[in-house]
Amino acid sequence: MSELKNDRFLRALAHQPVDRTPLWIMRQAGRYLPEYRATRAKAGSFMDLCRNAELACEVTMQPLARYDLDAAILFSDILTVPDAMGLGLYFVTGEGPKFERTVRSEADLKQLATPDPEDELGYVMNAVRTIRQELDGRVPLIGFAGSPWTIATYMVEGGSSRDFANIKGMMYGNPELLHRLLDKITQSTIAYLKAQIAAGAQAVMVFDTWGGALSPENYQIFSLQYMKKIVAALPKEADGRAVPSILFTKNGGQWLESMAEAGSTGLGLDWTTNLADAKRRVGDKVALQGNLDPSALYAPPAAIRTEVQKVLESFGTGSGHVFNLGHGIHQHIDPEHVSALVEAVHELSPAYHS
Amino acid sequence: MSELKNDRFLRALAHQPVDRTPLWIMRQAGRYLPEYRATRAKAGSFMDLCRNAELACEVTMQPLARYDLDAAILFSDILTVPDAMGLGLYFVTGEGPKFERTVRSEADLKQLATPDPEDELGYVMNAVRTIRQELDGRVPLIGFAGSPWTIATYMVEGGSSRDFANIKGMMYGNPELLHRLLDKITQSTIAYLKAQIAAGAQAVMVFDTWGGALSPENYQIFSLQYMKKIVAALPKEADGRAVPSILFTKNGGQWLESMAEAGSTGLGLDWTTNLADAKRRVGDKVALQGNLDPSALYAPPAAIRTEVQKVLESFGTGSGHVFNLGHGIHQHIDPEHVSALVEAVHELSPAYHS
Repeated sequence: MSELKNDRFLRALAHQPVDRTPLWIMRQAGRYLPEYRATRAKAGSFMDLCRNAELACEVTMQPLARYDLDAAILFSDILTVPDAMGLGLYFVTGEGPKFERTVRSEADLKQLATPDPEDELGYVMNAVRTIRQELDGRVPLIGFAGSPWTIATYMVEGGSSRDFANIKGMMYGNPELLHRLLDKITQSTIAYLKAQIAAGAQAVMVFDTWGGALSPENYQIFSLQYMKKIVAALPKEADGRAVPSILFTKNGGQWLESMAEAGSTGLGLDWTTNLADAKRRVGDKVALQGNLDPSALYAPPAAIRTEVQKVLESFGTGSGHVFNLGHGIHQHIDPEHVSALVEAVHELSPAYHS
Repeated sequence: MSELKNDRFLRALAHQPVDRTPLWIMRQAGRYLPEYRATRAKAGSFMDLCRNAELACEVTMQPLARYDLDAAILFSDILTVPDAMGLGLYFVTGEGPKFERTVRSEADLKQLATPDPEDELGYVMNAVRTIRQELDGRVPLIGFAGSPWTIATYMVEGGSSRDFANIKGMMYGNPELLHRLLDKITQSTIAYLKAQIAAGAQAVMVFDTWGGALSPENYQIFSLQYMKKIVAALPKEADGRAVPSILFTKNGGQWLESMAEAGSTGLGLDWTTNLADAKRRVGDKVALQGNLDPSALYAPPAAIRTEVQKVLESFGTGSGHVFNLGHGIHQHIDPEHVSALVEAVHELSPAYHS
């Protein structure tokens, strides 16, 4: 493997000095880019794009061609795992992801496969290897998976949900069944992320999109506990270099202290938590990633610059901060506005590093 | 007006002793009740139902006929105010509320009316008077309005929104215009709630459904500030009795301390905040209302009872707690499960009051 030319992202996660705050953007390879939409049209469905290593590599590289970003993230989806467990993922335009089968009973649970990451999920590992080769050490590659709780919501509901009727009915009414489902997902996710690291992922992120829909107590029991198991099971090093992990629970700002104890290198924050407060609460236990409101990118460039300054100022001086949005970039954002964001981080952040 | 026979709700908000924890349910007059669906079918559209004082009274009374609840809440909608300001509210089945006109410019702002609550919103006041008469002092009647920020999201977006593209573009790009809009809504809301109180509302609640989509700083500036103005402008007494106010920001658990300083009598909490922690954070400044996860009602009755016990236990002994869900009841909840909730509060809560 080529030597890594830009290690700002990894250094910031390790609290090592950097010349400026590293930056990447959640969902940076996405629909806001016309070149992404062109490749997507060429590929067919969203999953066709995920399953084609060359095209997945192409879209992964697109934001790096436009912007001077400090990390690449594998182009894939958190629902590859439950798909490989046998649920049959498909997408309905305007309605989001759906599963042909759901998991609501003992019998459903028994039917679930434990996928071999180099077999049923081999297309993801091929994408990781292809992207690493194409990156040629330019920036690190981030691998990822969904949190067991978040994946379970889709598996039990059969798709996206507003009120989580079925999984919460199970959580309150038959928690033992839910724990066994979460355990199966956790085992599959550990194998999946280990394989991503073996294939070349240099950091991993766990997305807990729906952990914030839980009470503080249930978050500990049904989400954090399983993310902790994942983090503990992953190799801490690969190719002689630390492999950092980042946990991100959307709307998880109320329980940052316990997230900081989960063993990950970093925590992702959405914009509903102030970075200065977060830093005070978690100390040096974890690095912090975030947390510009993605909707700030709807504002004109001058206003974007002001908001970038506020985020940098709230974290303050020193390492341990990875600049990002507080959630994925929206599809209707003007790519020129992203340029304004990138420029602002490049120009304003060196003042926070001596 | 008849003497109030059940004042548990008002006493709990005032931290006065009660024999058991008072209980009402957000959206208690709603689609989960077959009798509501029957009246709604008779009325025509949702707004036809709101505009008909007799039928609005009928649905307000329905949950009280089924369950021994400690408060009634006016059947209406938070969007009556922007409708009366001239935007033309209508509902599209499955898509939620929509406005014929939006507010995105200086010119749009100038067109907005300041509605006279006894004229354009007279149908709401008629409903309040009709319900008070029908209640005949059985339980207190709660009036309500949306928070200016929440109302503004609908006015600027033209309906519900996922990412608040337009209003956040305005907030970050032209905050001065947004402040003038918020100010107009605030003035209309003050007049509206004053009229509800004059017509017979014995407590008022302000619903800030979307304040939790803001950063902590922007929440203060664009939401809480205006709710504070509303609370300060309302009469503290009517008919020789205190008129308590309750502020509720969904996903507002991170900034409870500042909400507790806003001058209201109580705060509504969703289930992502632990009641014991909340009590510790706000002290005796405000009473607390909440906070069972509405999706706990999908579980079987025995599990509902366990969850009710947990909520009661987390608040602990003494007055200052109004039992409620952490958000509105979902339409697919079995009314028998609501019976289980009511029974559990009745049977388990006296132990927390000596």
